[in-house]
Amino acid sequence: MSITGKTQLICLIGSPVSHSISPAMHNEAFRELNLDYAYLCFDIKESEMADAVKALRLLNVRGFNCTMPAKVPMCALSDELSPAASMIGAVNTVVNDHGRLIGHNTDGIGYMQAVREAGHDIIGQKMTLLGAGGAATAIAVQAALDGVKEIAIFNRHGRSWERGQKLVDTINAQTHCQASLYDLADTVEMKHQLSDSAILINGTSVGMTPNTDLCPLSDLSGLHEGLIVSDVIYNPRETLLLKEAAARGCSTFNGLYMLLYQGAEAFRLWTGQDMPVAHIKEKFFS
Amino acid sequence: MSITGKTQLICLIGSPVSHSISPAMHNEAFRELNLDYAYLCFDIKESEMADAVKALRLLNVRGFNCTMPAKVPMCALSDELSPAASMIGAVNTVVNDHGRLIGHNTDGIGYMQAVREAGHDIIGQKMTLLGAGGAATAIAVQAALDGVKEIAIFNRHGRSWERGQKLVDTINAQTHCQASLYDLADTVEMKHQLSDSAILINGTSVGMTPNTDLCPLSDLSGLHEGLIVSDVIYNPRETLLLKEAAARGCSTFNGLYMLLYQGAEAFRLWTGQDMPVAHIKEKFFS
Repeated sequence: MSITGKTQLICLIGSPVSHSISPAMHNEAFRELNLDYAYLCFDIKESEMADAVKALRLLNVRGFNCTMPAKVPMCALSDELSPAASMIGAVNTVVNDHGRLIGHNTDGIGYMQAVREAGHDIIGQKMTLLGAGGAATAIAVQAALDGVKEIAIFNRHGRSWERGQKLVDTINAQTHCQASLYDLADTVEMKHQLSDSAILINGTSVGMTPNTDLCPLSDLSGLHEGLIVSDVIYNPRETLLLKEAAARGCSTFNGLYMLLYQGAEAFRLWTGQDMPVAHIKEKFFS
Repeated sequence: MSITGKTQLICLIGSPVSHSISPAMHNEAFRELNLDYAYLCFDIKESEMADAVKALRLLNVRGFNCTMPAKVPMCALSDELSPAASMIGAVNTVVNDHGRLIGHNTDGIGYMQAVREAGHDIIGQKMTLLGAGGAATAIAVQAALDGVKEIAIFNRHGRSWERGQKLVDTINAQTHCQASLYDLADTVEMKHQLSDSAILINGTSVGMTPNTDLCPLSDLSGLHEGLIVSDVIYNPRETLLLKEAAARGCSTFNGLYMLLYQGAEAFRLWTGQDMPVAHIKEKFFS
């Protein structure tokens, strides 16, 4: 569908944004469903966020995505937050509801859909999660909201330790899920927690290109057969962690479908329609 | 060419804008030349202009068009004006030159190109022009800058009379063209001025749909054979004025190619490339 005077803007803000696959994915989906939107990217620094949000309000965009460093400041700049966005403390999707900006976070929803897509059901089960950064936090909160029974979060002792503690407190206070925080260096505890976990997730960037010879787990002996092992990383497609896990009989999947399904959920929030995911997968995720 | 994370925004601001043909024209031209821009429209009221310009600066647009009511306020909001924009007192095209907004006015350039396109050369000749509003002012200034020798401007006595006087003063002070202002109701003067004019232009909206039975000339006896008669109106394609003129042996053309060529000149300013006008004509102007 061609752009006309009635076409409404949807966009991605953050910095950098020029590498993003979101314009390709969403514009193709708009075209497939004959929806009158165009999706562009704007490079916005953290200091420009307040002005950028004013700008997007004035231009009456249908909505927008936020990537780093826009996700956290967007919480305060939204008029209303979804429960997940509020608990995560970060917004990746904004819907302009007649001038009111509603902040959502679809990253965890995207991950949980990717789990189902990989053929697994982890509701009522236990999850071990590496990291307490943006991706890990979104996954933990959504998993807890969706009914995962227990989450063991392993984080490095350091600057983000407090963030991990806050995440655990939030989950324990606001959901029926039982969350705990452990030191990533504690290999004994790791093995213990993995022993009754249904799934292990790397929510850190350790192992991402160009550092493809790094593994977020220093002791691989906890990777038992039957464990689902997933990575939020999709570049490379198979991280060292996934390779080692597969070699030990684990079922593995990477971060590609989390990326796809966080977009599909944003698409649904903006358009009220389901993204044609089969088509989008074939075109951009295969 | 598909929109990616690198695609730069170009847009039209004003109100209303949803009917505009500019998105179709420019997006098709971008596609033809494989240029990485997308052209959208944003409904911006006069009171929102300062914020809108701030917004477009922040989003680092390549440039934008202004339509009513954005054209006049954009003069003060530009960092620099072209000579024509400055004399006209209105901007229809803005180029973002590394953060500096340069205001241009391509309406008169579009008209002068349409004259050539119709097979005429009016340089060094005399023009009779009806109206002293936005379109008429842009045409008069550009014609004077391009070397039209004399312009007789006929305007209604009323609110816009002073505007006409100012236009005449500006042209006489800043160009080698001789401009004069007459009362549109003075049919004797009209006939006298038309007698040695090469071209008559209706620069008013009189005769536009739905008022297609109105003619800006009350006395048609000045429409002598050989006179070129043109209209800035393109809806209807043939106004009552053009119909009557054609019946009297005048060569006529409407405002369509002025619209096309103001866009082509804006395109050249943004992209440094010539719009593929033959293709655009065939697709949208035939």
